[in-house]
Amino acid sequence: MQISCAFDSGNISVVEAEQASDIKLEIVKDNQSDFYQWFHFKLHNPALGEHVMRITNAGQSAYVEGWKDYQAVASYDRETWFRVDTEFDGQNLIIKHHLEHASVYFAYFAPYSYERHQDLIHQAQETDICELTVLGQTLDGRDMSLLTIGEPGEGKANIWITARQHPGETMAEWFMEGFIERLLDLDDGVANALLQKAVFYLVPNMNPDGSVRGHLRTNAIGVNLNREWQEPSMEKSPEVYLVREKMMQTGVDMHLDIHGDEALPVNFVAGCEGVPNYDARHKALEDKFKELLCAITPEFQDEKGYPKDEPGKANLTVGSNWVGNHFKCLAYTVEMPFKDNELLPDVIFGWSDARSAILGKDTLTAIYHVVDDLR
Amino acid sequence: MQISCAFDSGNISVVEAEQASDIKLEIVKDNQSDFYQWFHFKLHNPALGEHVMRITNAGQSAYVEGWKDYQAVASYDRETWFRVDTEFDGQNLIIKHHLEHASVYFAYFAPYSYERHQDLIHQAQETDICELTVLGQTLDGRDMSLLTIGEPGEGKANIWITARQHPGETMAEWFMEGFIERLLDLDDGVANALLQKAVFYLVPNMNPDGSVRGHLRTNAIGVNLNREWQEPSMEKSPEVYLVREKMMQTGVDMHLDIHGDEALPVNFVAGCEGVPNYDARHKALEDKFKELLCAITPEFQDEKGYPKDEPGKANLTVGSNWVGNHFKCLAYTVEMPFKDNELLPDVIFGWSDARSAILGKDTLTAIYHVVDDLR
Amino acid sequence: MQISCAFDSGNISVVEAEQASDIKLEIVKDNQSDFYQWFHFKLHNPALGEHVMRITNAGQSAYVEGWKDYQAVASYDRETWFRVDTEFDGQNLIIKHHLEHASVYFAYFAPYSYERHQDLIHQAQETDICELTVLGQTLDGRDMSLLTIGEPGEGKANIWITARQHPGETMAEWFMEGFIERLLDLDDGVANALLQKAVFYLVPNMNPDGSVRGHLRTNAIGVNLNREWQEPSMEKSPEVYLVREKMMQTGVDMHLDIHGDEALPVNFVAGCEGVPNYDARHKALEDKFKELLCAITPEFQDEKGYPKDEPGKANLTVGSNWVGNHFKCLAYTVEMPFKDNELLPDVIFGWSDARSAILGKDTLTAIYHVVDDLR
Amino acid sequence: MQISCAFDSGNISVVEAEQASDIKLEIVKDNQSDFYQWFHFKLHNPALGEHVMRITNAGQSAYVEGWKDYQAVASYDRETWFRVDTEFDGQNLIIKHHLEHASVYFAYFAPYSYERHQDLIHQAQETDICELTVLGQTLDGRDMSLLTIGEPGEGKANIWITARQHPGETMAEWFMEGFIERLLDLDDGVANALLQKAVFYLVPNMNPDGSVRGHLRTNAIGVNLNREWQEPSMEKSPEVYLVREKMMQTGVDMHLDIHGDEALPVNFVAGCEGVPNYDARHKALEDKFKELLCAITPEFQDEKGYPKDEPGKANLTVGSNWVGNHFKCLAYTVEMPFKDNELLPDVIFGWSDARSAILGKDTLTAIYHVVDDLR
Ligand SMILES: [Ca+2]
Ligand SMILES: [Ca+2]
Ligand SMILES: [Ca+2]
Ligand SMILES: [Ca+2]
Repeated sequence: MQISCAFDSGNISVVEAEQASDIKLEIVKDNQSDFYQWFHFKLHNPALGEHVMRITNAGQSAYVEGWKDYQAVASYDRETWFRVDTEFDGQNLIIKHHLEHASVYFAYFAPYSYERHQDLIHQAQETDICELTVLGQTLDGRDMSLLTIGEPGEGKANIWITARQHPGETMAEWFMEGFIERLLDLDDGVANALLQKAVFYLVPNMNPDGSVRGHLRTNAIGVNLNREWQEPSMEKSPEVYLVREKMMQTGVDMHLDIHGDEALPVNFVAGCEGVPNYDARHKALEDKFKELLCAITPEFQDEKGYPKDEPGKANLTVGSNWVGNHFKCLAYTVEMPFKDNELLPDVIFGWSDARSAILGKDTLTAIYHVVDDLR
Repeated sequence: MQISCAFDSGNISVVEAEQASDIKLEIVKDNQSDFYQWFHFKLHNPALGEHVMRITNAGQSAYVEGWKDYQAVASYDRETWFRVDTEFDGQNLIIKHHLEHASVYFAYFAPYSYERHQDLIHQAQETDICELTVLGQTLDGRDMSLLTIGEPGEGKANIWITARQHPGETMAEWFMEGFIERLLDLDDGVANALLQKAVFYLVPNMNPDGSVRGHLRTNAIGVNLNREWQEPSMEKSPEVYLVREKMMQTGVDMHLDIHGDEALPVNFVAGCEGVPNYDARHKALEDKFKELLCAITPEFQDEKGYPKDEPGKANLTVGSNWVGNHFKCLAYTVEMPFKDNELLPDVIFGWSDARSAILGKDTLTAIYHVVDDLR
Repeated sequence: MQISCAFDSGNISVVEAEQASDIKLEIVKDNQSDFYQWFHFKLHNPALGEHVMRITNAGQSAYVEGWKDYQAVASYDRETWFRVDTEFDGQNLIIKHHLEHASVYFAYFAPYSYERHQDLIHQAQETDICELTVLGQTLDGRDMSLLTIGEPGEGKANIWITARQHPGETMAEWFMEGFIERLLDLDDGVANALLQKAVFYLVPNMNPDGSVRGHLRTNAIGVNLNREWQEPSMEKSPEVYLVREKMMQTGVDMHLDIHGDEALPVNFVAGCEGVPNYDARHKALEDKFKELLCAITPEFQDEKGYPKDEPGKANLTVGSNWVGNHFKCLAYTVEMPFKDNELLPDVIFGWSDARSAILGKDTLTAIYHVVDDLR
Repeated sequence: MQISCAFDSGNISVVEAEQASDIKLEIVKDNQSDFYQWFHFKLHNPALGEHVMRITNAGQSAYVEGWKDYQAVASYDRETWFRVDTEFDGQNLIIKHHLEHASVYFAYFAPYSYERHQDLIHQAQETDICELTVLGQTLDGRDMSLLTIGEPGEGKANIWITARQHPGETMAEWFMEGFIERLLDLDDGVANALLQKAVFYLVPNMNPDGSVRGHLRTNAIGVNLNREWQEPSMEKSPEVYLVREKMMQTGVDMHLDIHGDEALPVNFVAGCEGVPNYDARHKALEDKFKELLCAITPEFQDEKGYPKDEPGKANLTVGSNWVGNHFKCLAYTVEMPFKDNELLPDVIFGWSDARSAILGKDTLTAIYHVVDDLR
């Protein structure tokens, strides 16, 4: 039996792997950080059959409540990721699986590799209406890449969507892939109508270093980018610094920051109610957008979510708060589940890469309905 | 130079084809009928370059107003259908095209062959939630095929969608292909939510004989099926008879009948305002559905359309009128353009097979929003 | 239960179809001919389970020995054709199948539709090195289509390949699809090397009328095209007339005529040993080509085949005999089995569409090795 | 303008990148080694137009003769790699390219990423006849993966193919991809026939660490694996150690080791003529296999190649030499060009990923013809 994680976004440490019935593993902390929850490893055993893996440090991970009712994903072919039998005993996350082929990957959620990321942005750049810009480099030397879709024009709204500040929240990049695919579909009426009124600035991966390193939440040196928006620096958080600079240049009329939430088994948004510049217009925009998304897809809801911020008490180091406050614009953090969506449960796949992409596509329709109100 | 139409849905008669600059053609009438407007032929000429084709009997076709601002479609590979230079002088429809390969197809709209139809329904039947039923045979002996998607259940709405009563309106079957694809997509939240509340009865092609024969508007013996709903018969209109019988068995809570309109350069619906059983509830449902479709996609509108029927004056031989009246249910005729959609013009493709399919997918969302009101 | 065949290449007549356990069918003769053996029909029955179909006139069909050890093919999705339980009792061909979905197609061999044929030749014409020519029309008005691949040049060999004179031998067009795909593959070294030395004239379907009509062996008016090469006429056999005329223009340095054989469970060739102009050079070419094909693929063999013609006794009305004699060139009839290939049996698929296409590709290699000897 | 290489197999060092007309770059040495020649980087410049890149240390690279008549490859979409204008002045390799999109990748040859490698082996393992085995780990902790295709059986030949000991020779893994695809194609007669007589042991990537690191020739610690076969160790060359151990277990009846050659513009093999155990039988096998490959594809030749070893003077640290000597079996090093194949020049793509894959497929045919002679 062999367990390995020396590949894109791999993360595991083997404590013991002698008996298929008693495999002990630990998730590795993000570099220079105490966060950990993302795991991604390959189990290889020519002796097929039942395997029991225990992640023994799950009880001290970043979001312990995330393990409740959670099912890990697995794949034999690296394309289809299905849910496997998983339980949490308060300390150990116990994954049981009957091997059907010798090699199987397990992960916290369907991975989105840096290779796929590069394919995504380079194939997009070949279309006439899309430009790829490299804003600068990360601490590990990777490109911070921005897709600009649509032609700048008088009165057009500048809409920014950023994803995967937290690299382990891979659903965020699956969401972006769906969003981009639809926005570039020349046959799609919503996309065409929208591009007459807006220009899109899309950052499919805000944290490529953390992504490749198999981090949950931070960049190459352990910085949580979503707490860096007030004072980003090229030393600690070039990812945010570069994007924020570009936002200053273009202006921002709307911002979505795409995330995954460990605990809640639903899709939801978190708004700017606590930022100093929040006002009635801002609230009206938020309400309209949220209601639209609820209307457009039964995958979205507004019952469950984060507690609302007190007026003026929002944390302005958070991306969407800072952007919403600074640009006085509609700015939401969009959250998708690591678990299943309890409103439309799917026992085989749970909330998935494919469903994240469809939510991305559906979000285009919601934007289409608010675009005239943005400026 | 050779012009031929001996293939699925081919329709043309060659008057003269000696000079590339002066090709004279006529559209052939539907069998045992005076209707004609659909054309579909292949031009072959190893001497590439400019060709001018004149359809000399366009001035007497079924919908002369259909030729105004109309551009014919053409294809070299039978997959991509683009618009070509076309004008109407009151009598002749003049199509000009510079040949780039020796063989090119021209048609009134992107064809949808009987082979593709069979592929569509047989691939659908392989999914767990879809059943294919043969209701009986047409006069030429083809199958009348029904797809039932979803499981029958207490209180579920029975939603019927029929398409292509008029066989030359091929956009109707492209619409169905999009609709079916989305309804069978297990990752699509709207589809999943809808299938908990409704069962779908889909007839992707109401008129296979007319389709294969290259008819515009009628079945094998020249009968306009959309004037047969009050008294269909196995002798004249088995297509309608068989579907109507099945509707009686299942009951109908909503009906869409998918068509193409020759004249209007927009997508629109025609409702039941003139049927005897029309009432406030029916009107409310119609308004809601129509507004939803307007909201969901900029491809749809409600400004232009057919004149409204006077109360009680509707033609009950028309499919959606008869169904709406008989079952006292929401029943719309959906019309798509042969021309471009003037709201979102596309000079290369105009209104197209791909856009028809997307409208089909978007229609699913509109149904999802009215499904609770249907019973 | 319903059985239908009103589609491309459909052929069956229902004698009795009341009980799933006792379905009686007959194959219909080719129009104006006594030949019959090709069948292709759809069985529809929502009551799944075991079905027993008896083709009651199998005992008088064209090649009774073809039913021995033969297994019919079936498909639910019209893409995958698998073998089903079949036996022959000397009179009835008995097909047994347990229905897993309501609709299933049965056929003598995987069908190749006229729609697919048109796709094949039109997609081919889009490549730079391929031209599509319409030689004229068949009696039903279909195009006789020729693909010319490669550029004419001094000293280049003119290689003709014709397929499906006998329309029920669909494996011949699958062979052509594979051959064409490889010949147009710009990355393939054999194709590239060959195109420096030869021009290919390919007729993927010599008999489109018989193909669409569901004939075994003849054209629209019951003429066996492979007995028409000495004196073809536009009245009886325009298919042969047009191709032969074009051969006269181009000259022929090699000819393959692709067929299927009902009885022998192997791939083999039949040569020109009995034609008047046969000589040692011709024999040497034949032997070399045959040995090469044996060497290239274990699917081919030279043990079993047709009896050799006596010197001077060959039937010159047969295509490859007439061509080989007239042009004094290598000319073979290539035969593939309707049954499985006994040398490499495959219980699930038998000899198949996919294997026919691969044999087509492999034949390119054999031609590459004789091309320098052809002139 | 930005130039980056922080991705799979990236290798470049920027000396100066201020002016598009005067970009200076250096290739980085393999870790703990002096070898360098592989380069792979992304150039990003929103100011499109002409760019001139100078690799200023090309004159001291591992194979200076490799730059003569060499054209670099480039890609905008990471899928299509085309050749670009390149010249060598004795010291600088000068690449000129007119940017058409803002981001373009350049490389020594079409890259083959570790992600794709993982996809390849995991998709293969899902077929019934293929098993994936992890032999152990590399120094960077990556898996050494072996595909076993076919079922062990009495008298069957054990055929080993290893590829990419030299990681910059990516054509070797493209070759393997083609080879594996064909061997797993259940419709392919050669594959089926071969699997009745042989079991295949395939190592698509002998040097995953060097591959990901962007090395030309060595593993993670600068060891040239193809000089390690006499005394490999887990400390220096676990890649060779693990594979050699497995070879000892299975026995070897034939071995191909797949490489790329920097200098020669042809495909060729290098044999075992200099190993102590070489004998007439060995020579006969070599000659037969070589002639077969020449016959099968015009891409292969035997005119140009490496100088022959003197009897008994072969370097037994080289993989195929050691295997051929130890197991007294047919063992060849297969070499493909980085340049174009001068026998079939292709100005757009040169020798390519696609052509390497086809050579892999064709090699299957050559093996089929010697398989009976191997034991
Ligand atoms: Ca987050
Ligand atoms: Ca209509
Ligand atoms: Ca025949
Ligand atoms: Ca090498």
